[in-house]
Amino acid sequence: MSKITSVRTEDIRFPTSLDLDGSDAVNVDPDYSAAYVSINTDDEAGHGFVFTCGRGNEIVTAAIESYGQLLVGLDTDDLVNDLGDASRRLIHDSQLRWLGPEKGVSHMAAGALVNALWDIRAKREQKPLWLLLSEMPAEEIVNAVDFTHIRNALTPDDALEILRRGEPGKAERITELQRSGYPAYTTTPGWLGYSDEKLVRLSKEAVADGFGMIKLKVGGDLNEDRRRMKLAREAVGENIKISIDANQRWEVQEAIDWVNELAEFNPWWIEEPTSTDEILGHAAIRKGVSPIKVATGEAVASRIIFKQLLQAGAIDVMQIDSTRVAGVNENIANLLLAARFETPVCPHAGGVGLCELVQHFSFFDYAAVSGSMDNRMIEFVDHLHEHFIEPVRVENGRYLAPQKPGNGAEMLQESRDRWSFPAGAGWQQVGNRAAVTGGGNR
Amino acid sequence: MSKITSVRTEDIRFPTSLDLDGSDAVNVDPDYSAAYVSINTDDEAGHGFVFTCGRGNEIVTAAIESYGQLLVGLDTDDLVNDLGDASRRLIHDSQLRWLGPEKGVSHMAAGALVNALWDIRAKREQKPLWLLLSEMPAEEIVNAVDFTHIRNALTPDDALEILRRGEPGKAERITELQRSGYPAYTTTPGWLGYSDEKLVRLSKEAVADGFGMIKLKVGGDLNEDRRRMKLAREAVGENIKISIDANQRWEVQEAIDWVNELAEFNPWWIEEPTSTDEILGHAAIRKGVSPIKVATGEAVASRIIFKQLLQAGAIDVMQIDSTRVAGVNENIANLLLAARFETPVCPHAGGVGLCELVQHFSFFDYAAVSGSMDNRMIEFVDHLHEHFIEPVRVENGRYLAPQKPGNGAEMLQESRDRWSFPAGAGWQQVGNRAAVTGGGNR
Repeated sequence: MSKITSVRTEDIRFPTSLDLDGSDAVNVDPDYSAAYVSINTDDEAGHGFVFTCGRGNEIVTAAIESYGQLLVGLDTDDLVNDLGDASRRLIHDSQLRWLGPEKGVSHMAAGALVNALWDIRAKREQKPLWLLLSEMPAEEIVNAVDFTHIRNALTPDDALEILRRGEPGKAERITELQRSGYPAYTTTPGWLGYSDEKLVRLSKEAVADGFGMIKLKVGGDLNEDRRRMKLAREAVGENIKISIDANQRWEVQEAIDWVNELAEFNPWWIEEPTSTDEILGHAAIRKGVSPIKVATGEAVASRIIFKQLLQAGAIDVMQIDSTRVAGVNENIANLLLAARFETPVCPHAGGVGLCELVQHFSFFDYAAVSGSMDNRMIEFVDHLHEHFIEPVRVENGRYLAPQKPGNGAEMLQESRDRWSFPAGAGWQQVGNRAAVTGGGNR
Repeated sequence: MSKITSVRTEDIRFPTSLDLDGSDAVNVDPDYSAAYVSINTDDEAGHGFVFTCGRGNEIVTAAIESYGQLLVGLDTDDLVNDLGDASRRLIHDSQLRWLGPEKGVSHMAAGALVNALWDIRAKREQKPLWLLLSEMPAEEIVNAVDFTHIRNALTPDDALEILRRGEPGKAERITELQRSGYPAYTTTPGWLGYSDEKLVRLSKEAVADGFGMIKLKVGGDLNEDRRRMKLAREAVGENIKISIDANQRWEVQEAIDWVNELAEFNPWWIEEPTSTDEILGHAAIRKGVSPIKVATGEAVASRIIFKQLLQAGAIDVMQIDSTRVAGVNENIANLLLAARFETPVCPHAGGVGLCELVQHFSFFDYAAVSGSMDNRMIEFVDHLHEHFIEPVRVENGRYLAPQKPGNGAEMLQESRDRWSFPAGAGWQQVGNRAAVTGGGNR
């Protein structure tokens, strides 16, 4: 009998703020970071992490450590063969639940552990996560989902029906995914901190690289946004989509007005126009900016908020995130909700390791849930992939199917050691810079 | 010039699960706990805490520790004389923001520090917090509020108008509060873990003690709820209100059906019928159970969710909580939102120290915001008050006005030492019981 012998956490940070990679109207100086966890048995290890922006990575690490104590000593088979039950043990713990419930640090920490358990399962079955999920019996998928507080939109029977509907043609779609991958779009050109020259150059490169959409950060200054949007449109032409992303910067009416001022440049979607908790606000914005689409999700705390965004007709695009919610199980719930409301899923992946993780959900979605790639794309940002044992492969604007067994989270030991914060050799070299140690900047 | 010299945190827990005090359909075995913080200058100290249910208190303590580093070395006068700016420094920190945003562990941790800064300010002015707020110029109150993402319901001008409207008669209301206090209701009889005999006895005592309302926990078993509700109604008679509280146990339709099954016992409000994040669900439940009122708030993460509950007509009663949101500032925002929507505020206070803290907001609300006590009551639970330097005084069913300078959070040093977890003498005596160290129970 295999038992969970230890749960080990690591605080890993990359000094991305040095180059203003990842800078937007709200996240002005992120140091892309991972609160990383390894769940160990005598002869196995599963990995997971929570993405953060630097300061506070130690808080999430501490939370994973605490939640991890609920797993140590338990039977590994019990956990990885009933991942629905494993997830509920963490998320509905009678005392820890108060800390959310189901939101923020505690929820993300539980999610990292859930993901690490799926990693063990996928490695046992020698499959990448997306293939494991795609080939799993519908009943087992449904059993992994927590339907608490979403039953008025999606019942277990609804979920089964969606998955059953996806069974014909599934084998062919898996083959297709393995052959030609899944569409991507890129945010690489669009960070606020970049010069005009860099914006134009990267936009043209994106087209040359085969991407069908680029994304620009907006919301700092309207005139600047108009200027940058014009440059980008000229650079990519009329046949490439340009989406824009305000990172929750605006009030509701402000969002409507601002987006309409950019309408002449034909943006495809406006992402995070306002607070991620705004069910009613997103619904109003969607009405106010139509036909420009509304997208959100990277900071949507749970399936319960996503459910309401869908019920209220508040979004055109659901942007799931691999480490914001409570792991694989809740992302399956989100995919099923999206299918139920016939809403395309375009995952968020700007960060470290988020591309590596989240691609599995889009591949699974095409194989077994929505069965469609229409208006669906996975975000791609070309940062920090070299630190993972299986870096994403994006060619001709498409993600190629992950092949290695596991969930994609495992980071190279050398990278983990080098960028361990604050003692790793990398941090000793770049020094204790202001972005990490300073406080209070807006 | 005074500087913040240190921020000291303490993990304080009380073994309340031994007696099933505080047990409900979801929180089956809470150990009432405080992630406690002291902000120190050379010659002053301000106190704050986050209430939790036991496990995970160490996570919040770690989060307060991290946020606290943003304050160490700053000028105390700058902070306590512009508490709006102080709050924004913490809550909108460009890297930490990702951990919420504005929800869960990180938000509560920031709130504890904000509260501790208000404690310093109130002690400097030698006033209890409620009186400090009540006598503060309207402009300074408005400056403390963060209007981000609530401006479509409440602008700074709206807030000023509400406070100006409250100025006539304010001095008289303050005198009235000092003379005769503020109405309370009690949850003491109604915990799920109590025997019938204890339920009936405590219900009768509540009436004898002058309370106008008692509250019962429901949602475990419908037949049990009907039986207990009948016993309670017989014990208190027809002229005392009985409210019921499901602690987020139900799905939306389930809530409507269950509550209607209890309607014959004439419940005053149903509290937390479903997920606290359910804007649309609470609106549906309110329609479905009318004229029984709908109340929620102890787990509402921010003013942004409260705003939407009010906009959607989803609640009859707003239950603010003193340590769930980001401190005094955000609770002022919530009181102003309630006033704007003419919704009564009945604070949540089941926990440790929550009565001591939250009473200040109702006193301030009556003096300077709503100016009304109609259908307004502060929850009272008679647990653990002896650990505070100024325990609440409740007489004849009314809270008496706090008198000591400060926000009410300061706990006796002896209590903090004794119930320090896990090393305090109290914990050494009761031992490492299952409720604290065990995991995974639902």
